[in-house]
Amino acid sequence: MQIPVDTTANSSTVIGFTPYKTALFPLSVSCDANTINVTWDNGDTSLFHYIWLRDNCQCAKCVSTLTREQLFEICDVPLSIKATKAWINAQRRIMIEWDFDQHISEYFPGWLQAHCYSDSARLKRQFKPQTWNSSDIETRLPQYQYNDVIWNDNTLLSWLKDLRSFGISLIENVDTTPDTVAKVAERISFIRQTNFGRLFDVKAKPNANSAAYTTLRLPLHTDLPTRELQPGLQFLHCLVNDATGGESILVDGFKIAEHIRQHQPQAYLALTQYPLSFYNKDADSDYRFDGPVIATNSRGAITEIRMANFLRGPLAIAPEQVMDLYAGYQLFIELTRDSRFQFLHRLSAGELIVFDNRRVLHSRNAFDLKQGARHLQGCYVDTDELTSRIRVLERAL
Amino acid sequence: MQIPVDTTANSSTVIGFTPYKTALFPLSVSCDANTINVTWDNGDTSLFHYIWLRDNCQCAKCVSTLTREQLFEICDVPLSIKATKAWINAQRRIMIEWDFDQHISEYFPGWLQAHCYSDSARLKRQFKPQTWNSSDIETRLPQYQYNDVIWNDNTLLSWLKDLRSFGISLIENVDTTPDTVAKVAERISFIRQTNFGRLFDVKAKPNANSAAYTTLRLPLHTDLPTRELQPGLQFLHCLVNDATGGESILVDGFKIAEHIRQHQPQAYLALTQYPLSFYNKDADSDYRFDGPVIATNSRGAITEIRMANFLRGPLAIAPEQVMDLYAGYQLFIELTRDSRFQFLHRLSAGELIVFDNRRVLHSRNAFDLKQGARHLQGCYVDTDELTSRIRVLERAL
Repeated sequence: MQIPVDTTANSSTVIGFTPYKTALFPLSVSCDANTINVTWDNGDTSLFHYIWLRDNCQCAKCVSTLTREQLFEICDVPLSIKATKAWINAQRRIMIEWDFDQHISEYFPGWLQAHCYSDSARLKRQFKPQTWNSSDIETRLPQYQYNDVIWNDNTLLSWLKDLRSFGISLIENVDTTPDTVAKVAERISFIRQTNFGRLFDVKAKPNANSAAYTTLRLPLHTDLPTRELQPGLQFLHCLVNDATGGESILVDGFKIAEHIRQHQPQAYLALTQYPLSFYNKDADSDYRFDGPVIATNSRGAITEIRMANFLRGPLAIAPEQVMDLYAGYQLFIELTRDSRFQFLHRLSAGELIVFDNRRVLHSRNAFDLKQGARHLQGCYVDTDELTSRIRVLERAL
Repeated sequence: MQIPVDTTANSSTVIGFTPYKTALFPLSVSCDANTINVTWDNGDTSLFHYIWLRDNCQCAKCVSTLTREQLFEICDVPLSIKATKAWINAQRRIMIEWDFDQHISEYFPGWLQAHCYSDSARLKRQFKPQTWNSSDIETRLPQYQYNDVIWNDNTLLSWLKDLRSFGISLIENVDTTPDTVAKVAERISFIRQTNFGRLFDVKAKPNANSAAYTTLRLPLHTDLPTRELQPGLQFLHCLVNDATGGESILVDGFKIAEHIRQHQPQAYLALTQYPLSFYNKDADSDYRFDGPVIATNSRGAITEIRMANFLRGPLAIAPEQVMDLYAGYQLFIELTRDSRFQFLHRLSAGELIVFDNRRVLHSRNAFDLKQGARHLQGCYVDTDELTSRIRVLERAL
């Protein structure tokens, strides 16, 4: 077996690029019918199923050293596979010999702790966003400098963690050359293309195919709810803002969803269970998607907001659900209009606002071009890219 | 009100680019507490809520004639809005005068029928895929010619509808110049970029970062289950295939899921309710996603398959679910290996296979380069683009 070996007791072990720090060592292991139980040197215990352990053998026969992909296939062993022997070796790793094929597997303490799947361990690893209302964000808005984000990987990581946690951030002193927004976005990864292009220019245009491209006030919304996967991060870089009006307004949709969950359970049920229909028809495209305003995961956590009043199609739900969904939807919109939840900021040239488009609703007031021009440039980067970049940057810590 | 007017009784009415054909005309309308009931001239009836009708007024005050986006906001009227008057006008359209603001709305019969939301109407509009096993697809594989797909919009529509229905198709006599695959993909829309680039070259490479780029056999899988949204359509264009072996194998994952639903309800429950973990770690990326092997929608219909044994991470589910999920997972993999479900095809130069990557699992046998080279070029286009293109092409019918 060609396993990377940690020779010093407290070092990290690198598996597939990721370091796993060793905080605890095993004191003992015992074998049950389906599981192995490990007691750690602080008294904690962890339980692992035999089949789970066999599946996660990291040896060079089971995982390709070239591609880091699994070579072992789960059908190649019986579900009832068991340990004939389990022990702690001289390097304080857990060793198992299997009954099926006499294969021997080796597990690093730090890796096992990082992947323990007890209820409490899984709960601890769950992502918990920091939600905000108007006064919270006035004092806690994450602010960064363009040069630091571009040149310093530690700042980059700090910015991205703030962005994941708060869903919003402001970058200052950004070069106002067109396409600079792409430079910032590409510090994370590639840009998500849409039917509005790779980069989009937010300014009043003749023949506008979106309200964004007029001088009109926009109601609070997420972008592209008409698509199955709404774009993750939205970047809006202000190149010029000499017009009157046009203040940006941002609202934490998770905060509103929490508020509804607490105070209006019937509305919350409708907004999480019944889908709205979103349509966007243009000369050469016709996107439609049905999804709830508030998406939740299997644990009931709020994971996503989907909302743009001006991109809706006719509701297509059961007749007995129609009144409940309209009531919930009216409530949600009324709350987005409530100043307690709104963060108001007039973007100046050289400012770049970045926010989680699947959580933070945005809008702008109407503007008047008599006093001067208004030009923002924007793009999207998907959530997968954000979390991937955070993991890669954290490898170096 | 500036509504497009149909002057002949049976013409289509174009609303936001989409024509709505008039099959039935209203005989009578009656008003209830929350709804209007329409009786059509074939005896059918439809029910529409007042708030739904007010929300869907298509007049120029309510919908922008420039962007086709809704200007009306649902908070601007009370949930209890009612008709003071409802009638059928001389052009056989349904007219409503509202109690709240004396606004008058006009509804086209074809549009109302297309958006009727009774249980039976919604059921009728539901997409029903044509699933297949080995013998089904041997005789019914949708086959198209490159020149027809490129130059003929009717063929394009027919190909895309087959692709949506069967999840698979073969295009023949494709120019073997590199990047031709993009020409075919762009008949639908823009290409979905991933961490493997815009186009990817499937051939054996040194320092492969995926098993796809070796000569190894691949187990049946969907691509990029490590991402929240798996790419929709996958294009694989064969430029050269002089190697020995390397036969392509494709399996309809929906057929296997249906089989499990019928015969193994406990496994079906685990595969639909408990997520697998998918990981893909490279030097500069670290993608992870937890999702079930079989995704279903709120009506219980099978909507997506997510599966690549070689891209899995450690299961992170409740301990009491572990054995059930492994049992279901083993069963699913065993069925993908069953020749009854497999479509085998050795791609020749000039052939392009296109399939629904979120439904049809694919793999290839190992190959040997002693006899010659093997080079496929591939790309992805998302499902949103497929359905949008079908709708746009259908406007012309």
